[in-house]
Amino acid sequence: MRHLLTLETLPGAKIAHLLERAEDFRTRGRQRDLLVDRTVLNLFFEPSTRTRTSFEIAARRLGADVVNFDLSRSSTTKGESLLDTLHTLEAMRLDALVVRHNENRMPDWLAEHANTDVAIINAGDGSRAHPTQGLLDALTIRQHRRNLENLAIVICGDIRHSRVARSDVHAFTALGARDIRLCAPRALLPEDTSEFAGCVVSEDFDAALDNADVVIMLRIQKERMAAALLPADSDYFAQYGLDARRLALAAPDCMVLHPGPINRGVEIAGEVADGAQSRILDQVSNGVFVRMAVLAELLAPRA
Amino acid sequence: MRHLLTLETLPGAKIAHLLERAEDFRTRGRQRDLLVDRTVLNLFFEPSTRTRTSFEIAARRLGADVVNFDLSRSSTTKGESLLDTLHTLEAMRLDALVVRHNENRMPDWLAEHANTDVAIINAGDGSRAHPTQGLLDALTIRQHRRNLENLAIVICGDIRHSRVARSDVHAFTALGARDIRLCAPRALLPEDTSEFAGCVVSEDFDAALDNADVVIMLRIQKERMAAALLPADSDYFAQYGLDARRLALAAPDCMVLHPGPINRGVEIAGEVADGAQSRILDQVSNGVFVRMAVLAELLAPRA
Amino acid sequence: MRHLLTLETLPGAKIAHLLERAEDFRTRGRQRDLLVDRTVLNLFFEPSTRTRTSFEIAARRLGADVVNFDLSRSSTTKGESLLDTLHTLEAMRLDALVVRHNENRMPDWLAEHANTDVAIINAGDGSRAHPTQGLLDALTIRQHRRNLENLAIVICGDIRHSRVARSDVHAFTALGARDIRLCAPRALLPEDTSEFAGCVVSEDFDAALDNADVVIMLRIQKERMAAALLPADSDYFAQYGLDARRLALAAPDCMVLHPGPINRGVEIAGEVADGAQSRILDQVSNGVFVRMAVLAELLAPRA
Repeated sequence: MRHLLTLETLPGAKIAHLLERAEDFRTRGRQRDLLVDRTVLNLFFEPSTRTRTSFEIAARRLGADVVNFDLSRSSTTKGESLLDTLHTLEAMRLDALVVRHNENRMPDWLAEHANTDVAIINAGDGSRAHPTQGLLDALTIRQHRRNLENLAIVICGDIRHSRVARSDVHAFTALGARDIRLCAPRALLPEDTSEFAGCVVSEDFDAALDNADVVIMLRIQKERMAAALLPADSDYFAQYGLDARRLALAAPDCMVLHPGPINRGVEIAGEVADGAQSRILDQVSNGVFVRMAVLAELLAPRA
Repeated sequence: MRHLLTLETLPGAKIAHLLERAEDFRTRGRQRDLLVDRTVLNLFFEPSTRTRTSFEIAARRLGADVVNFDLSRSSTTKGESLLDTLHTLEAMRLDALVVRHNENRMPDWLAEHANTDVAIINAGDGSRAHPTQGLLDALTIRQHRRNLENLAIVICGDIRHSRVARSDVHAFTALGARDIRLCAPRALLPEDTSEFAGCVVSEDFDAALDNADVVIMLRIQKERMAAALLPADSDYFAQYGLDARRLALAAPDCMVLHPGPINRGVEIAGEVADGAQSRILDQVSNGVFVRMAVLAELLAPRA
Repeated sequence: MRHLLTLETLPGAKIAHLLERAEDFRTRGRQRDLLVDRTVLNLFFEPSTRTRTSFEIAARRLGADVVNFDLSRSSTTKGESLLDTLHTLEAMRLDALVVRHNENRMPDWLAEHANTDVAIINAGDGSRAHPTQGLLDALTIRQHRRNLENLAIVICGDIRHSRVARSDVHAFTALGARDIRLCAPRALLPEDTSEFAGCVVSEDFDAALDNADVVIMLRIQKERMAAALLPADSDYFAQYGLDARRLALAAPDCMVLHPGPINRGVEIAGEVADGAQSRILDQVSNGVFVRMAVLAELLAPRA
């Protein structure tokens, strides 16, 4: 494993191995000697303080140096091509680039064009993949339910544009999940459902929730709602928001997940986000452990 | 002591203890092993490079990791509530949040709502408190005069809106000061002077300076001057600026302090800011030591 | 050596010593114990992610703390004078300030006015000097050719406004180079060529390339082209761009350098920038080693 670009091609055993390593970090805490003398650079073309901070904390807890490459002020504004930026950063002898970009497959393109053995870690590309989010969601489910095979997992929201949904489906499927239900208004369902083969796709959230073990609510981006001629916030909430009444349709111990930041009253009710079944903050904690595991695996593979 | 929110409620003995610890750091320098494995996050909702840098340097000199959370690019811009930001950061297992906010008592509100034992350090909230500034001003005075009990201390400028004035008065009073004189044009005096009980309040700067041992000049913010229908810079300087002639009204060894950044020719003459009686740069140095002491006290209390 | 402001006054032996120390770092890698307990602050008044990142990585690889002072959000926006900023930073007990400013000699001015033994390192001032660039260019040439005395070195582009050209000429001359050829359209040649005494100045790039051992292409800034009533990109490239045909006029093993970021198709053809004779990425790598050497020399001089 040289890069982490997507979970789509990762075998279940590899994903399970990463999750075990993340669980190790959860138990044992930092390991400051592991990545001493390694340099990790955050290359974010889209703002994301949460994910960047999570990677930064993860890398420091393993003893790595972390450099934030601020692109709003960078020489890319002087017309430097992305390829030249890549090779320039490689020449500074970096060990890993954590990349977020609004274009699909840009991290793969960087990995293909790298001249050195720098590890490329996809921190979210367009609507395509967000592999560490998929891993942390799987880790959060496994923290409470050892086995995904018999779980009914609902993912609700803007499936069409969601890299989170895609990486979640890849992770859960690889780990044996057999009952994944995707739910959204028609405008936010994928145009071609073949990429979600094996999942049940529907527009009826109440039905989808029936006896569910896990429900993952996706963030609604207001720009997209307008573009898709979607109803107002309150109408969306009425049809697709997760409130206590709806959650009661699921299994009694159904877990609630959300990649954050949440829109209270748009896709999720405050009482549910803050409620006993919410695992949203576990996700954030697990995000650091999963990123430690990914960095460790790529830069300090176990013998 | 779990948080540092204001000096108002801190006993003199506690303040003295913090100042002694700061003096220790001044003497002994860094102590890189003290906060190893601790993470401090700077959460600044108002820009302040000076104070942020001072905290960053203080934390690093104790061996802590420091993460700057850049709010202009953060997910709060995506509509995340402050409470969700707090809990998200807590879930990343931070040890301290250094918070600056333009609303009074926001750090207290965060402390009340914290789920973990994260320490909240107020780095300035609205016009209410700036406790590390109060401590560093007290430390600077004590560096030259062991005892505050018999000192005449003048604070001049925008008392009404000044969190520095408030924290100074709390610190000095707790340490035994009995002669604190507040001076400002009427529009910049507090509406209700009861919060400054025990201080003498006046509009006559020359009279206030009589035989003073310490004079603290506050920064004038031009926005406020306009709003208060204050006279032009030069008129303000004529009435409330500290120049050599006025300083001669004070005791011969009167110290001059200013929280910075200074407006030369507005509230203070360059010759005074740069003169032999100025302790402005001592304040900056002491700022790092006081912040080391606060971080040490909160995260590594002495047995 | 207390500061690094320009190479103009540095003896060849000192420059050679710095290059040897940089070569040591290239061979031996990091030396994390060298600058422990030292603090380096990046004070950039002009954006430059590349150079700032190179200094940041260099300082961290020697174990120093690095603080980035973000001036777009700093208290200089509150009207603080540059001198007050300098003294404030000094009072925080910094060991080195890495300064970039668009005015010539601003780093020298800071060095003159410093109150402490803080080291000022010029990271580029106006059109005057960029000493670490001069050093890294010399290091890159020496990496492939031990001796500069018999080399023909061409520098082509906006000589008039180029701090890189000036520092290159100072470095190469001090190291014994005797055949330096400067080439540009008239509008971009220096008004007074006396500062480039000893160099051959011409407008004919083809002639200048004759049997050259090194060619350094300078970045063309489009703002400057318009101001100088220069022809369009494609016309500039036709006359002064380095393509394969032109490179063939030089010696067969002629090295190609560029300080980056490059404008492909403006001053250099992609095939040349990416070709076998290009040493552009060596320059980036050497930039880190040279900056390690400068920081080490200033903050931890060898006995």
